[in-house]
Amino acid sequence: MTVHQKPAGPAKPVSATPAEVTTGAIAGSGKVYASPENRPDIRVPFREIALDPSAGEPPFRVYDTSGPFTDPDTVIDLAAGLPQVRASWIASRGFEAVAARPVKPEDNGNISPEKLVPACPADRRVLAGAPGRPVTQLECARAGIITEEMIYVAHRENLGRAAMLAGAEERRADGEDFGAEIPAFITPEFVRDEVARGRAIIPANINHPELEPTIIGRNFLVKINANIGNSAVTSSAADEVEKLVWAIRWGADTVMDLSTGRNIHNIRSWIMRNAPVPIGTVPIYQALEKVDGDPAKLDWEVFKDTLIEQAEQGVDYFTIHAGVRLAYVPLTAKRVTGIVSRGGSIMARWCLSHHRESFLYERFDEICDIMRKYDVSFSLGDGLRPGSIADANDAAQFAELDTLGELTKIAWDKGCQVMIEGPGHVPMHKIKANMDKQLKVCGEAPFYTLGPLTTDIAPGYDHITSAIGAAMIGWFGTAMLCYVTPKEHLGLPNRDDVKTGVITYRIAAHAADLAKGHPAAKLRDDALSRARFEFRWQDQFNLGLDPDTARAFHDETLPKDAHKVAHFCSMCGPKFCSMKITQDLRAEAGAMAAAGSEEERQAGLAQKAEEFKAKGAAIYVPAE
Amino acid sequence: MTVHQKPAGPAKPVSATPAEVTTGAIAGSGKVYASPENRPDIRVPFREIALDPSAGEPPFRVYDTSGPFTDPDTVIDLAAGLPQVRASWIASRGFEAVAARPVKPEDNGNISPEKLVPACPADRRVLAGAPGRPVTQLECARAGIITEEMIYVAHRENLGRAAMLAGAEERRADGEDFGAEIPAFITPEFVRDEVARGRAIIPANINHPELEPTIIGRNFLVKINANIGNSAVTSSAADEVEKLVWAIRWGADTVMDLSTGRNIHNIRSWIMRNAPVPIGTVPIYQALEKVDGDPAKLDWEVFKDTLIEQAEQGVDYFTIHAGVRLAYVPLTAKRVTGIVSRGGSIMARWCLSHHRESFLYERFDEICDIMRKYDVSFSLGDGLRPGSIADANDAAQFAELDTLGELTKIAWDKGCQVMIEGPGHVPMHKIKANMDKQLKVCGEAPFYTLGPLTTDIAPGYDHITSAIGAAMIGWFGTAMLCYVTPKEHLGLPNRDDVKTGVITYRIAAHAADLAKGHPAAKLRDDALSRARFEFRWQDQFNLGLDPDTARAFHDETLPKDAHKVAHFCSMCGPKFCSMKITQDLRAEAGAMAAAGSEEERQAGLAQKAEEFKAKGAAIYVPAE
Repeated sequence: MTVHQKPAGPAKPVSATPAEVTTGAIAGSGKVYASPENRPDIRVPFREIALDPSAGEPPFRVYDTSGPFTDPDTVIDLAAGLPQVRASWIASRGFEAVAARPVKPEDNGNISPEKLVPACPADRRVLAGAPGRPVTQLECARAGIITEEMIYVAHRENLGRAAMLAGAEERRADGEDFGAEIPAFITPEFVRDEVARGRAIIPANINHPELEPTIIGRNFLVKINANIGNSAVTSSAADEVEKLVWAIRWGADTVMDLSTGRNIHNIRSWIMRNAPVPIGTVPIYQALEKVDGDPAKLDWEVFKDTLIEQAEQGVDYFTIHAGVRLAYVPLTAKRVTGIVSRGGSIMARWCLSHHRESFLYERFDEICDIMRKYDVSFSLGDGLRPGSIADANDAAQFAELDTLGELTKIAWDKGCQVMIEGPGHVPMHKIKANMDKQLKVCGEAPFYTLGPLTTDIAPGYDHITSAIGAAMIGWFGTAMLCYVTPKEHLGLPNRDDVKTGVITYRIAAHAADLAKGHPAAKLRDDALSRARFEFRWQDQFNLGLDPDTARAFHDETLPKDAHKVAHFCSMCGPKFCSMKITQDLRAEAGAMAAAGSEEERQAGLAQKAEEFKAKGAAIYVPAE
Repeated sequence: MTVHQKPAGPAKPVSATPAEVTTGAIAGSGKVYASPENRPDIRVPFREIALDPSAGEPPFRVYDTSGPFTDPDTVIDLAAGLPQVRASWIASRGFEAVAARPVKPEDNGNISPEKLVPACPADRRVLAGAPGRPVTQLECARAGIITEEMIYVAHRENLGRAAMLAGAEERRADGEDFGAEIPAFITPEFVRDEVARGRAIIPANINHPELEPTIIGRNFLVKINANIGNSAVTSSAADEVEKLVWAIRWGADTVMDLSTGRNIHNIRSWIMRNAPVPIGTVPIYQALEKVDGDPAKLDWEVFKDTLIEQAEQGVDYFTIHAGVRLAYVPLTAKRVTGIVSRGGSIMARWCLSHHRESFLYERFDEICDIMRKYDVSFSLGDGLRPGSIADANDAAQFAELDTLGELTKIAWDKGCQVMIEGPGHVPMHKIKANMDKQLKVCGEAPFYTLGPLTTDIAPGYDHITSAIGAAMIGWFGTAMLCYVTPKEHLGLPNRDDVKTGVITYRIAAHAADLAKGHPAAKLRDDALSRARFEFRWQDQFNLGLDPDTARAFHDETLPKDAHKVAHFCSMCGPKFCSMKITQDLRAEAGAMAAAGSEEERQAGLAQKAEEFKAKGAAIYVPAE
């Protein structure tokens, strides 16, 4: 394993063209790259958290979604785009460079030239696969080919497992995986097999060479998605890129760009060329813009053209609401909140307006053929997901899910990678039924859920109502959790809301990983808890998901540097600090550390108890 | 049912002696009191949320923990104390007025006279029960007596059930109650029976006449507790009372006063006389202060004296760490985080210092006799609860739980009400084992858990890591959830942290109520979701747990009053609003509303689809 160490440094804004995005390391950590054996050309990024020397532990390495933006050695130039880590891998596969689809005025909402945001000038040839030769990761996997993407994600997922392989089986047994098949160690061959079986996807458009690949599947770490979208008044392309950069800094594994309106094509070019994570979109949004916002005017031609437009730009997965069939729409009539998916309502409107079966459903074969050419993964949209507790698990929702299962098989036959979107609003006792049904009818294709929110009564706190459901459904087997911010139902999330949403969902995903028994998941909990027990405050902050907030909270009551080594906190103060008391007990029963057996330890404690009694030892540290 | 309506009004600070506490109604709502049939003397408070006339719905009534502070008709005078709602009930039971234990200098930490906070001047006689006559709610229940407290809590719990009794069985069947026995309707006799069986408690010291009783048990609504404690620099007794007032304003069902240090006795007098909710304490904290903070100096006499001191003041429940036995302490030696309970570490230290069995364990009979005299409920402390994922469900934790089960039976034999404290830090897959074991070994006595936190890796967000575990264990059967604030592990919670913690735990408790199938729990979700679907923005805010935050979030992007009636929000804007599209669909398929059967509805939709097609109806509302 080759390690390219980067020193830890403070966050600093680096000037980028045409404006600034957030760069610099997360507090207390630095970027490292590690390569799988015999593949120095594959450099997998990790974040390494430096620990206090008193810890007697090496730096702690964590999964890192933040891309080159947190690498001080990478010059960020938005106009040039990120380093093309996949370029040589893709080149070796012999895809044809094709003539790019010409950009049309409607791609940018027919905006007047003076208001047009220029496209990202980063130069990329458009590639497309040909029939008869593997293009998608699924086709490669089925053909027995282990792609570089598979090697990359195997190495990425294995973090912490190699060093602790001995106890991995035990740790897996400690979890409850509900029938998942999580191996002690992830080999590239295991990845290939999971992708071939459709149980995992590696969203990786062949036109997205900047991607640091990630895998989404029930037998891998739970992933999270953050949604971004343009504001009503977009000041610059860099502002839009910054939303992406900010979301991945805190841990978003994929980002969906839900932008609508003007300049959508050109802004997407900036996002794609600067995205180290898979980018998803909902093409029907842009297609609708092209027909002046009237769903009835949508047709196959405009939709198809939009698919090609976005696929050529490098979008890694498309939400396609092909399961909203004409016959299902009336099933929503008695609902408390009707149809709450934008794509679902658009397609429902189209179906009823024309009183015809959905053209997405009828043309599904052709959609597959287009998406296969670029290896755009399907995210089969749940257009009829429930928007309230009252509507959870109803006939409309489950009818659509049955259809998504049917479409999954078609997409697989066509060589496409597939994941399935899920609810929504579901009370706790109805969550598992969603997971069980999805696994059954969709042949174990990865599930990708929005929350679910476990109650409707807390607008302003729906990151929390949904984190409960997300952690549970992630435990049950959902592969990726779409985040919800505190502004859900109320307004557009700002920068703080995005961070809160991402951290909240990292919590849900990690709680799920722990409960499933991922062999190395507990390492970080244990490292942080050791730091906590040993009063290594800086380590405790830095090992957490958000060192800045933890440090700021601590500083509110104990701001002095001296308090960062204090053997207490402001919650209990020095006299009542239970961990301090326990530490003292242990230290004074000194034989314990050296003693080999539990019996000796207990004997040591008992003996020391007598000594304490004799000398009446004080157990408190003096207040500082 | 008698209703005493109070008009809704804006929040306003009312001058109180000696300083101010928060008073006034929560936005959009007002206080009402309702009485059970034939008992106009029992006035149960509720909060009534006014809805927009367009809703065609009556005001929505919710459970109300906030006490007289949100009643504009009650003059708040901290020095006089709250109205004594229980005074006549207690008086009718013939308890003896006894000579109050004289206040000693050490009760207030031997503070110098010039720094002494005066005691609350509200005059209350000290009452004590006698042997051979029922004192506690448990003794009354066993004697077949239905107390006023039982009638009160039955009426309080029944909110929403009376009006919907017809469908209650169906709604219960919709939930998963894991063996709980939740009735469709709560009768006073059911309450009596649950209390008699020890499955529920009504913490209600006979010296706390200001209490608005609440019931804690698995077959009732899930309750939440908020902890408060004095600051290092206490400016006034009113500041301490304000912490209580603020916590119950947002929904704390009980409050634990974890204060330590000087003036503790006198400040407690202000809290008790102004507490409409049960107050819990951990008497060992004050006992330790009295022996200069040295656990080895603790003895039965000082502890006993402290129990009597606090019981006479009216404290409703005591955390007693009698399960930390000498033999269990060495079981914590290999733990990652040792002992994290303050009371647990104090008692472990005592046991080891003297190498003797815990005096709390040995004197448990005598503790029961004291607590019975005043009807102070036990909260049997989990002094060996795990402080990290690594330590969850270990031998130390479960050995103590076995002992708590043994002590529960002793306390019951002595006539005392009992609940059991639980963890802590537990990964999701190990949560249910805690509930199952607690039910089994503690004879279904109510469980009262801290979280549990489902991961250790998010300092600064532990309200969220724990809300996941709290919602789950509440669903499984935990009767009360102790809140965790964002400052957990880092510092003292401020006002915002307390509110965030309380709202977060209200979410967890409500999610649990929904999942358990409490017949009326879903009413609020449905009312809010209807408001959401009908774009009644003010109703959506006001029906939520925190109207102020919801409104503020909405105003960040759409501040105008006109937007409060807009048929869209800033998330999707008018063109992409799925709910608007659905509404239009329904409205245009006008036959639907009138149609009686599903077939007619579907026929209506199909017919209208043809009409839309013909006229090409636009479906968007114009942007405002």
